Amino acid sequence: MEFSSKLLENAVNEMSQLPGIGKRTALRLVLHLLKQPNEQSQKLASSLVKMREEINFCKNCHNISDSKLCEICANPRRDEQLVCVVEDIRDVMAIENTSQYRGHYHVLGGKISPMDGVGPGDLTIPSLVERVKSGKVRELIFALSSTMEGDTTNFYIYKQIEPYNIATTTIARGIAVGDELEYADEVTLGRSILHRIPFESSLKNT
Amino acid sequence: MEFSSKLLENAVNEMSQLPGIGKRTALRLVLHLLKQPNEQSQKLASSLVKMREEINFCKNCHNISDSKLCEICANPRRDEQLVCVVEDIRDVMAIENTSQYRGHYHVLGGKISPMDGVGPGDLTIPSLVERVKSGKVRELIFALSSTMEGDTTNFYIYKQIEPYNIATTTIARGIAVGDELEYADEVTLGRSILHRIPFESSLKNT
Repeated sequence: MEFSSKLLENAVNEMSQLPGIGKRTALRLVLHLLKQPNEQSQKLASSLVKMREEINFCKNCHNISDSKLCEICANPRRDEQLVCVVEDIRDVMAIENTSQYRGHYHVLGGKISPMDGVGPGDLTIPSLVERVKSGKVRELIFALSSTMEGDTTNFYIYKQIEPYNIATTTIARGIAVGDELEYADEVTLGRSILHRIPFESSLKNT
Repeated sequence: MEFSSKLLENAVNEMSQLPGIGKRTALRLVLHLLKQPNEQSQKLASSLVKMREEINFCKNCHNISDSKLCEICANPRRDEQLVCVVEDIRDVMAIENTSQYRGHYHVLGGKISPMDGVGPGDLTIPSLVERVKSGKVRELIFALSSTMEGDTTNFYIYKQIEPYNIATTTIARGIAVGDELEYADEVTLGRSILHRIPFESSLKNT
């Protein structure tokens, strides 16, 4: 693409660095900003810079937070002995939305993936082991996605914390609520039969 | 969506002001920026602000430009008597890409659309009439999209410049090169038969 202005070209190039934003989309977004008042671009720009520079991660669970300890970790009414291991902040938000969980979290910041050059050292696993070692954790819930990387990460953490003898669980896999059996994949359906639960307990949270 | 950080929330809110970017996509983009070095956010932010503040529109054709007169208008080898009327800079880029046009442009900045509150005064139509009035234009080519708004705009401009007695043309509508006749819509196919051209002239630009 040839641009009639260097300023425009720079803005489009920077915008198209974002994932899923190609040059054409970037041009559309930038031309939209041109039609809006000056302030909108300024507010967007300053909010991005401010966030990038001042953002803080909870020293306990590594969730994004404005204070040293995030709201969840600072809440005395939550069970700090129950820790849910998730990949990133979006998973925390998803679980929080269910209002079904009253424990703490541990945000790994990714999954072990040798293909992408992500090793255990790039994640917050050492800090998780430290939490377990300190004896404050009763149960660890693995809530990573069930991909090869997720399973590898689960297993790696499991091996690391084995000596400390705490309960480890993983979230239930099965047919989604409202889904038709006939369209479910075999692995999911197989697991949901294998890991069936007493009917009475299925009545609890509906 | 509930965020664990005000900084994050602000950034996501600003990002989701862009057209076609919802809250979820905005969160994905912002989290991506968090994983990249500080400089990337800064470069993105400053390129947007710099563009918004310093961008210039060619005083002749209203195209985006870094100088007072855009490269096309400043080029003495282009025919200034031939003016192509387009909606925005993307159309200029598309036509320039064909390398088939050696005239000037006039960028309207939109189309007349009472539904969206866009009247003739919001576009650069007065300046186009001025260009025609000055006697420097021999032919005006309408290259707006063939929607109701496009046709209205064409007609409005046509009426405005009628007294000055210059040639007005519109780009050819027809079956796209390489398209199958059977899948073409009736209006396009009908027009392409009605406005058929001598076979010899179709041999010129292949």
